[in-house]
Amino acid sequence: MTQHVVVLGAGMVGSAIAADMAREGFRVTVVDSRPEAVRQGGAMEGVRAVQADLSAPEAVTKAIAGADLVVGALASSLGLQTLRTVVSAGKTYVDVSFMAEDAWELDPIAKQHGACAVVDCGVAPGVSNLLCGLAVEILDACERLEIYVGGLPVERSWPFEYKAGFAPADVLEEYVRPARMVEHGRLIVKEALSEPERIDFPPVGTLEAFNTDGLRSLAYTLQVPHMKEKTLRYPGHIELMRVMRHVGCFSKEPIVVGGARVRPLDVTSHLLFPKWTFEEEEADLTVMRVVAEGTREGRRVRHAWDLFDRYDPVTKLRSMPRTTGYAATCMAVLLLRGAYREPGVHPPELLARVPGLVDAFLAEYARRGLKVAHSTADLPRD
Amino acid sequence: MTQHVVVLGAGMVGSAIAADMAREGFRVTVVDSRPEAVRQGGAMEGVRAVQADLSAPEAVTKAIAGADLVVGALASSLGLQTLRTVVSAGKTYVDVSFMAEDAWELDPIAKQHGACAVVDCGVAPGVSNLLCGLAVEILDACERLEIYVGGLPVERSWPFEYKAGFAPADVLEEYVRPARMVEHGRLIVKEALSEPERIDFPPVGTLEAFNTDGLRSLAYTLQVPHMKEKTLRYPGHIELMRVMRHVGCFSKEPIVVGGARVRPLDVTSHLLFPKWTFEEEEADLTVMRVVAEGTREGRRVRHAWDLFDRYDPVTKLRSMPRTTGYAATCMAVLLLRGAYREPGVHPPELLARVPGLVDAFLAEYARRGLKVAHSTADLPRD
Repeated sequence: MTQHVVVLGAGMVGSAIAADMAREGFRVTVVDSRPEAVRQGGAMEGVRAVQADLSAPEAVTKAIAGADLVVGALASSLGLQTLRTVVSAGKTYVDVSFMAEDAWELDPIAKQHGACAVVDCGVAPGVSNLLCGLAVEILDACERLEIYVGGLPVERSWPFEYKAGFAPADVLEEYVRPARMVEHGRLIVKEALSEPERIDFPPVGTLEAFNTDGLRSLAYTLQVPHMKEKTLRYPGHIELMRVMRHVGCFSKEPIVVGGARVRPLDVTSHLLFPKWTFEEEEADLTVMRVVAEGTREGRRVRHAWDLFDRYDPVTKLRSMPRTTGYAATCMAVLLLRGAYREPGVHPPELLARVPGLVDAFLAEYARRGLKVAHSTADLPRD
Repeated sequence: MTQHVVVLGAGMVGSAIAADMAREGFRVTVVDSRPEAVRQGGAMEGVRAVQADLSAPEAVTKAIAGADLVVGALASSLGLQTLRTVVSAGKTYVDVSFMAEDAWELDPIAKQHGACAVVDCGVAPGVSNLLCGLAVEILDACERLEIYVGGLPVERSWPFEYKAGFAPADVLEEYVRPARMVEHGRLIVKEALSEPERIDFPPVGTLEAFNTDGLRSLAYTLQVPHMKEKTLRYPGHIELMRVMRHVGCFSKEPIVVGGARVRPLDVTSHLLFPKWTFEEEEADLTVMRVVAEGTREGRRVRHAWDLFDRYDPVTKLRSMPRTTGYAATCMAVLLLRGAYREPGVHPPELLARVPGLVDAFLAEYARRGLKVAHSTADLPRD
C-alpha cells in the first residue's frame, strides 16, 4: 500500500515538499490554515490539501493521524509545539521549521513514544549538518569545520543587493543575535555581523561572509575544536546593516516619538520588508560551502563540499524553497525506506554515523538537480 | 552715547553674537526664553541677559524697544514673525534665522516703517551672498556662480563622519528638500542629495559636494545664467543618507506599527540626533568656496573665494557659531556705522552694490580671524 506523507504548512517550502513527495509516488496531504495556500496546494498533481489551524495542537494530531511520515514546514514560532505533538503521536518526522528553541529537549518524549524525528533538516542547517557529520566520519581527527551559506537574488539592486528567501523578520534576527562558535574546543560568542571577509564563490563571484549564530546542534554533538558558520551576502550589504544597527534601527527597546511608543526594529522591518520581497518569478540563487580540515592516515587534508543552485525557470520554483524543501524530502525518502529508525529527536549530523546514509542522501539530492561537489586537498604540515 | 544692540536668542550663535558686539564696545542685551541660556548669556562680560518668551510678538516688541539695532538668532520657525515684528517697529535688523519662508515678502512693511533689515546674514546664506553679489559687480558678465559650504566635525567617526552644527532636524530637511538651481537662466529643480562629486578643499582634503536648496534669494536677485549651491560632507556620508532615504527613514508619511502611528522621519531623527551632537569642546571646521566665472574686459576669468576656519580652543567657540554669528556682527557694525540705510528687507547680495561695502565687511570678518582668500585665474576661451 502506498505510504502516506502529511506535510504541515503549504508555504513556499511546504508546497515544494508536497509536490516532490507526490512526484515520488507517495500519497500526499498538505495542511495549512490559509485558504489561498490550501487552494494552491490542492491544485498540485497528486496532492490533497486540507485547511486546519495548525497553531492548535489538536488540529495537528488530527491532521497527522493516518500518516506514515510527517514533514514540518511551519513558521519557526510553531516549531517546538508541533514537534512535541508529532512525536507524542509516535510518528516519524522530518522538520525544517528552524525553531529558536533546542529541539533535542524533546528527545526523551520521542524515545518514550518510539518516534524518530530529524529536525533542522533544510539546506543549512540540514545538508550542512550531514556534511559536517560526514567529515567527522571520514577524518581520523577533524580539527576545523566551516559552513558558508547564503540565499541571494540574482539581480543585484542598489543599495542592499538582497531579498529575503524566508520570513524577513528572521533575517533581521540573524543580524542582531550574537553568534556562537567554537574555538579551541570552547564555545565563544561573537557580535552579530562581525568579521566580514570576502571570499570567491564561483560561478557567483566574490561574496562577503559574516558570523551568524548558525552552528546550533553542531556545537554540542561534534567534538571539533574549531567550528563556525558564516552567512553570505553580496559585498557591501553587511556594512549597511552595521550602519543601521549603529543608528539603532534594529533596537527592540521602545522609544517615544510624537506621543507614540514604538520599537525601532518594528519600524525598520515595516520599511524594509516590501523592498526585500522577491518579485513573482524573480530569480534567486543558493550558495553553500562546507569546509573540513583534519588528519587522515597521518596526512593533513582539507575537504570542501560546494552547492550552487539557482531559480528554476521551468517549474518557476526559486532555489531557496527547493534546496530547503528537497533536503527534507530526500531525508523523508530515506526514512520511509527504513534507512534510519532510531527513536529520538536527532539533528542531521547524527545520522551521518550510519554508513552510506549521507551518500544515499546526496544521490537523492542530486537526482533533484542539487549537486554537491566534493573536493579534497592536502594541507601543509604545521 | 553708546549704541544699544539687542540680540534675540542666546543659543550657540546668539551667544557668539552678543559676546562679539560687547567686545566691540556696544551696549548689548540678549534675550532668550530658556533660563539656562539667560544665565549663561548674563555671565558674559558686558552683556545684559533678559528672559522672555520670544514666540510672543509682544515680547519681541518690548525687548527691542530701546535698541539701535536688533540681531535675530532665533529658531528658523520663529524667523518670519519676528522679522515682521522688528521691521514694524522701524528697527534696523540683521537676521540669521534661516527661515523657510521668503523674507522679502515683508519688504513693503519694512519700507512703510523705514526699517532696514538684512536677512539670511550668516555664513551661507550670508557671506556667500555678499561674494556672489561682489562677483556680479566685478565682472562685466557673470556666467556662473557656484557655492560650496559645509560645517563638519574635525574627528571623522564611522559611519557618518558628521555632526550637526545647528538644529539636526534642519539637517535632515536639507536632505529631503528638492534643490532649486539655475541652468541656462531657468530655475530648475533637482532631487535632494543628487549629483555628489568629490572635490579637494585644502587643508581638509577631499570632500563630497551634493545639491542642496541653498540659492534662496540669489535665484531671483541675480541675473546669472548658471547658479547652484552644494553642501559639503566627508566622502561616503551622502551614500548612507541616500540609502536611508531609499529605505524610507526620512518619510513624513505616517506608518502604523505595533498599533502605534509614527512618522519614520521622527523615529530616524530620534535615533540619529544623539549621535550627531557635538561633544563639549569638540572641534569642528567650516569650509566655504564661492566660484564665479564670467568675462571682464574681454577675457574669460574665474574668481574663487575660500574660507576655512576651525574650532577656537582659546574661546572654546566652535567654528559654526563664529562663522555664522560674526557674519551677523560684521554686518551689524557696518549698518551701525551707516554704511547702508535703505529701508526694506534685503538679502545680502543687494548690499554688494554699495561700493566698498563687501571689502569693509571682509575686513571686519578677517579682524575676527575669518579670512576669505580670493584668487583669480584666466579661463580658456570657448
